[in-house]
Order: sequence, then C-alpha cells, then structure tokens
Amino acid sequence: MHFEEAYQIIRDHIAAQELDEARKVLGEFQPADIAEFVENLPVHEIGPILNLLSPETAGEVINQLDAELAGDVLSDMGEEKTGAIIDEMYSDDVADILGEMTDPEKDKILSLMGQEDAIEVRELLEFKEDTAGGIMTTEYVAILQNITAERAIQVIRETAPDAETVYYVYVINDKNQLVGVISLRELIIANPKTLIEDIMHHKVKSVNVHMDQEEVAAMVAKYDFLAIPVVDDDQSLMGIITVDDVIDVIHEEASEDIYRLAGTAEVDFEDALWKRIWMAVRNRLPWLLVTLLGGFLAGGIIRGLEKEIQTVVALSYFIPLLTGMGGNVGTQSSTLAVRGLATGQIDAGKMLKTVGTAALIGIGVGLICGLIVTVMAFLWQKSLLLGLVVGISLCVNMITASTMGTFVPLVLKRFGVDPAVASAPFISTTIDITGLLIYAGLSSVFIKWLV
Amino acid sequence: MHFEEAYQIIRDHIAAQELDEARKVLGEFQPADIAEFVENLPVHEIGPILNLLSPETAGEVINQLDAELAGDVLSDMGEEKTGAIIDEMYSDDVADILGEMTDPEKDKILSLMGQEDAIEVRELLEFKEDTAGGIMTTEYVAILQNITAERAIQVIRETAPDAETVYYVYVINDKNQLVGVISLRELIIANPKTLIEDIMHHKVKSVNVHMDQEEVAAMVAKYDFLAIPVVDDDQSLMGIITVDDVIDVIHEEASEDIYRLAGTAEVDFEDALWKRIWMAVRNRLPWLLVTLLGGFLAGGIIRGLEKEIQTVVALSYFIPLLTGMGGNVGTQSSTLAVRGLATGQIDAGKMLKTVGTAALIGIGVGLICGLIVTVMAFLWQKSLLLGLVVGISLCVNMITASTMGTFVPLVLKRFGVDPAVASAPFISTTIDITGLLIYAGLSSVFIKWLV
Repeated sequence: MHFEEAYQIIRDHIAAQELDEARKVLGEFQPADIAEFVENLPVHEIGPILNLLSPETAGEVINQLDAELAGDVLSDMGEEKTGAIIDEMYSDDVADILGEMTDPEKDKILSLMGQEDAIEVRELLEFKEDTAGGIMTTEYVAILQNITAERAIQVIRETAPDAETVYYVYVINDKNQLVGVISLRELIIANPKTLIEDIMHHKVKSVNVHMDQEEVAAMVAKYDFLAIPVVDDDQSLMGIITVDDVIDVIHEEASEDIYRLAGTAEVDFEDALWKRIWMAVRNRLPWLLVTLLGGFLAGGIIRGLEKEIQTVVALSYFIPLLTGMGGNVGTQSSTLAVRGLATGQIDAGKMLKTVGTAALIGIGVGLICGLIVTVMAFLWQKSLLLGLVVGISLCVNMITASTMGTFVPLVLKRFGVDPAVASAPFISTTIDITGLLIYAGLSSVFIKWLV
Repeated sequence: MHFEEAYQIIRDHIAAQELDEARKVLGEFQPADIAEFVENLPVHEIGPILNLLSPETAGEVINQLDAELAGDVLSDMGEEKTGAIIDEMYSDDVADILGEMTDPEKDKILSLMGQEDAIEVRELLEFKEDTAGGIMTTEYVAILQNITAERAIQVIRETAPDAETVYYVYVINDKNQLVGVISLRELIIANPKTLIEDIMHHKVKSVNVHMDQEEVAAMVAKYDFLAIPVVDDDQSLMGIITVDDVIDVIHEEASEDIYRLAGTAEVDFEDALWKRIWMAVRNRLPWLLVTLLGGFLAGGIIRGLEKEIQTVVALSYFIPLLTGMGGNVGTQSSTLAVRGLATGQIDAGKMLKTVGTAALIGIGVGLICGLIVTVMAFLWQKSLLLGLVVGISLCVNMITASTMGTFVPLVLKRFGVDPAVASAPFISTTIDITGLLIYAGLSSVFIKWLV
C-alpha cells in the first residue's frame, strides 16, 4: 500500500476519533516514508499525523523534513507535544531546525527543553553550518580511561539506553581529552577488573571542530568509519559525526560543485516562487555579465576583421562553429579537472603531467575535427584555402581549449581558490576570445589569396 | 610523522632484516593511509610492505587500492601469502578485484581459496557491476525464525567472530527467505527461550539483487541504514550492502552525472598514457561531432544573412555574444534540472510548474542583459535600431535557452532516458541555432532601416 492510500484511511479514522486504528495503519510505514509524504501537506495537517506517533518516531519524521518546514510544524504543534518530541531528537538535528528560525521562535523552543540540552543546542548553534562543529551531535558515549571495564559497561547502560547505536566507545582523560577508543564487544569480553586504558586503542582518528565538512566527509569515506569524534584545539572531545550525516554532506558538496561548474547556485525549492526566481536571477547574473563583456570583446575582434568579412563574407559563417567547439572542449576539460581534483584522482602537484596529457588529447580531437571541417568547408565553399584557414583555426583553438580548461582549475587549486569557479561560462568565454584571435590572425594573413 | 618519512625508515629496517622494527613503525598507520602511499610505488615494492602486516590488515590495505592495481599486487605476492590475505577479505571486495583480471589470472586466485568461498565469489562475478548484486557482500549474519534467542546468540558467536560489525541480524525461514530483522541488543535482552519469530521486526526493507546501485544508494541514504539486505525474485536472502560501499556509489554516480553533463566520461587514471588519451578522445568525440554539425547549421543560417552582413557588417560582431549567452543560460538551466531530478528536488511530474519557473527566470535575466546590450551596442555602433535588434534577439534567446534547458531534461526523464545526456554540448548547440534564427529573422526584417 502506498502512503497516499493509507493517508485517506488514516484521515477517516482520525475524523471518526478512532485513533488506535489510525495508529495501526501508520505503524506500517518507516519514518522516512511518512516524512516524504507529509512534506507536501499543509503544515496544519502534519501535526495530527505526528500526534499519532510516539515522540521518538515523530522526532525521526521531523528530522527527515526540510529544516524550515520542520520548524513550522514544531511551532504549530503545541508546547507539550513539541517538548516531548525535541527531547527525543539529537542535539545536532534540533540545532539544524533552530538555525532556520527567528530569535523569538528559537527561544520559545529552547525554553521547552531541559536546561542542559538547551545549553548544548545553543553551543552547537555557534558553529558554522559547514564545519565539523555544525554537523556533529553531542549524544555520544565517552568513558574515563581510569575506570574498570565493569564500571564502563555500567556507565554505558546508564547513558546510552539505545545501545545498538553505539559502534565505538570513546575514551577520555580527566581533562575531557580524547585519548582512545574501544568497541562495545571488546569491552564485554574484557576482564571486568581491567582498566580501560590498558585495553583501549590509543590510535584514534579525530577531526577538529572547525574542519570543513567536505574534509570530514572525505576522511570518513576514506577510512570507512561509521562515526568520527570531534575535538577542539585542546583535544577536548566535543561530539561525534555519524555516517548518515556524512552521506548528506557528500550529496550537498557534489551538488555545490555541479552548480558552480555551470556558473550558478542551488535554489531553495521550499521558498516562495517570486523569491526563488529572484535568487536564481541573482545567482546567475554575475557569470552572465562576464560572458556579456566577453561577447563585446569578441565583437571587437570581429570588427578588426571588418574588411576581410566584407570581401569574403563566408568567413563569418564559421564563427559559431569555432566558438561552439572551443567552448565545448574547454568545458569538458575543466569539468574533468575540477571533478578529478575534488575526488583526489588528479594531484594538483603533478601540473605538468596533467596539462601535458590534456594538450595531447586536444591535439587528438583537434586534428580529427580540424580535418573534417577542412573537407566540409571546402565542399561547401569550393575553396581549399578557406577550408584550411577554418580547419587550422579550429584545430589550434581546440588544443588551446583543452589545455586551458585543464590548466585554469589546477592553478586556482594551487592558489587555494575553489577550482569549481573555473565554471563553464568563464572557460567558454575566455576560449571564445582566444579562438577568434587565432581565426582573425589566420584570416588576415591569407585574405589576399581568399578573394 | 607522514607515511613518506616512515617509509624510508621501514625500508631501511627491511634491508637490515629488522622486520619487527619495521612492523612497529608500520603499525602506527591506518590501512587507508598505507594504501594511499603505496599506490604510487612500483608493484614489486608493495609486496614487501604488505608482508609485514597480518593477512587481515594486508587485506584492508588491498581493499583500498584500485581494483586493477590490487590484482597486480596479489599476482606478485606468491601463492601462500595471497591465499592467506584473500581468506580475510570480504567476498564482494575479492570479486571486484577478480573482475579486472584475465580468466587465467582469475582462475589462479580462485584456486587459492576454499571451495565454498570460491563458489561465492564466482556467483558474485555473475552480477552486473552497477547492480545491488554487484556491490553486495555474502558475509552477513542470518538466523532461522524458528530457533530460540539463546540458540541464535550461539549461532552468531560461531558464524560472526567479528561481532562488532553486526548491526542487524537478519531472520530467514527454512526456504532462506528474508522474513524479519532484529538487533543484537534486542536478542541479548530477550528471554533465552523465546522464539525469534515472536520478537523479530516483520517490517524489513530489502532490495532486489538486480536493482540499480543508484537506487540502492538512494534508499540507504533515505532511511539512514548502516546496511540493507539483498534478496532475489523469490525473496531469498542473497547478501547485504553496507554503508561504506554506498558512499562509494554516491561518489561514483555524482561523478558520472557531472561528466555526462559536460558531454564526456571518466578516464581511468591507472591506464597507460596512450590508452588514456585514446579513451578520452573516444569519449569526447561524439558530442563534439554533434557540435560540429550544429556549427555548420549555424553557418547556413548566417549565410542566409549574407546580403545583410555585406550591407551592415556590424551585424556579424554580435554573433559570439548571442551564442555565448544563450549557451550559458541553457547550460545553467539544464544543470539545475539534471541535478534537481537526480536529488529528487525536482519532481518530473510537475513539468509545467518547473518549466514555467525557468521561463520566468529567463525573462528576468533576459530583460536585464537585453537592456544592457541594447545600450552598449547603441553606444558602440551609434545606431539605436541595431542596439534594439541585438538586445531583443538576446532577450528572446535567453528566455528560449532557460526554458529549453529545463524542458529537455524533464522530457528525457519522462521517457526514461538519463536526463544527464542533455549535456552542455547538446544544449548549447541547439540554442546556438535557435538564437541565430531569431537574430537572422529580426535582422532581415529591420535591415532596410539599419543601413
């Protein structure tokens, strides 16, 4: 049964006050499925559904919603229920939702939380959204290094009622500094009287609270971790980042790179239509204005060819071909370079080798396409020389495009700039200009024989 | 200490036959760190390093290497050591490596394995690489539904010595069909005499063995699972897919989309230089040839403007501007559409709304850029009419580009074609042509007043 059908039945049950029946139907679905459906309902219809669930499950549903919608739903649900749900949620998820709220809304939700929890969430709100601190949760299991295995198990039972979510137990010293890690299984099979520090692993990978989330994700992916501890500059344990949040980061960062490559940015699909259009226009204009300026520069180059075009108007026929091909080769190369740098397949240090390979690829595609164009232009315009001018220009342009499309992202990376700013608009505009310069040069040299 | 320094020390120890010393230095590093360093060494230098490690750790290092290199290293290491390492590796990882080998190499490795393991790996090799079957592992923990909790724990102890990797215990019936799931913790706190079928969860999400890996990854990400069971058409349990493999799939699929958008494909950086160049040329040529044909079509349109250009040569100055701007707006729109469809933010069903929004954005950027170009062209060429012809053409072109760039991926998706084939080369070439048609139309209407 799809949730859509189920929803009709649930609504009828609610209307008839048959809450247990409604609950039974709802119980057949996973929180993620419920979230996927209710996010398309009006806010005031979501509350009654969540009211049927336990606070824990309701919290899981809310956690799957867009942070802004989640805030609206919580604000709509009444203090008692909201308080109960928030109590069951992880601090990082609560902080994500509060981050989208106005200060009075935020304070109202915080006032519903226990004092200690509220302080934790307030602290999380201080970290930048895209750092380790911004995605970590403060619900982790840590034990002191100088207690016994027996005592440790007792501490874990008390502090972590949901023991199946405990993959790693982190070990701290009395200054709260991370000093080791141990698995639950190792703890259970250890002699009860052994001290933790004698059986723990001393090598424990951690990330600094200010580390960029992209680096954190890369590390978790590299080591196949299920969670990684977060420490501050003094090695004090601050929280943990779990693999499900890392998956979200990987999606987010891939999207960011893709949009940046196209010279645009993500639009928040939850926004109102007019706001979305305005944001989209604002995101796209900068690169479009660069292209526009480039277009006038290109026009200036063609103007330098004025006499030649008036004599041999056919020279103008090949302008879109030249700029189009150059732009495409350049975009292909810059895309491969930017993604290769992001995934670590291209090493920014080996610049000469990488750019050299790109040049060889440019020569390959340039020779093939240049030859085809020479023949086609000759057949069309019955002038071998015109064909050669166009074909050679195209070939040189494609080699330049392939080389530059690879070179620019590598240089940006080396200077610490995000290589994805070498976007398609930037690369193709630059290459339009160099391509036309080559074409104008060759044309003006050969014009006397072209007439 | 970086691994590079450590490697010098380790090599000196190996040369001096001080293997225990070498082992101690190596022991400070995680398998992933060792893998990252050794993948740049010649194959015959990797074996001696792995020989210092336990077969289990050596297996983890090999698992982090590129599958092709991993095969070369294993082939180079001698039968006994290779057999010991392979024994410790998961069947899916072994299958990945064997998938890159020639048949005789493959058979040699399989002959070193236990018969049962070899059969499992052979079976895995039958599945397509990018399906659930291609990424699943056969090392999972399953128990029968009609045994007691006590007996179940005993079975798990026997079959899963590494109990910390057991997050979920799957429950099957006597036909090996997946019927439930239970957590290790639930099993431990249950009454020892209870039957599993009375305490297990009956709702268990699974994927079919032929499901595309992208769908599997989306499902694991959606439900925040650490692993998902794989079943065949009869609901028979075949294996599990763990979250670390899902992360690899997410990276892979994002890269694939990015490359396809640029009209190219990934190049295997492990290949020899000439092979890499040849593959790159082959990947890129198809879309370049499409662009090339488009370029001749565009040339044909300009040829239709021959008379007008000979009279007002300035008309040719604005060709790169028009095609460049149209291409960029189109690429931006198609990128947003393709990624939005991939992440589920755009619903292919709401075509009218999505395309309508794109048209409005096109009107926004089109009006702004059209106005700027009208003014600039007027100032440059001292002809308001020419400015208006260029400006209006640009505006209409940008609206078309934004609409088409969004429309094409949505249509492709609806017809079940990967929307990412609406690549930058395809979109920008199509838009070059429509843009020039608009320009040619307006120019030929207004030419009598332009002279």
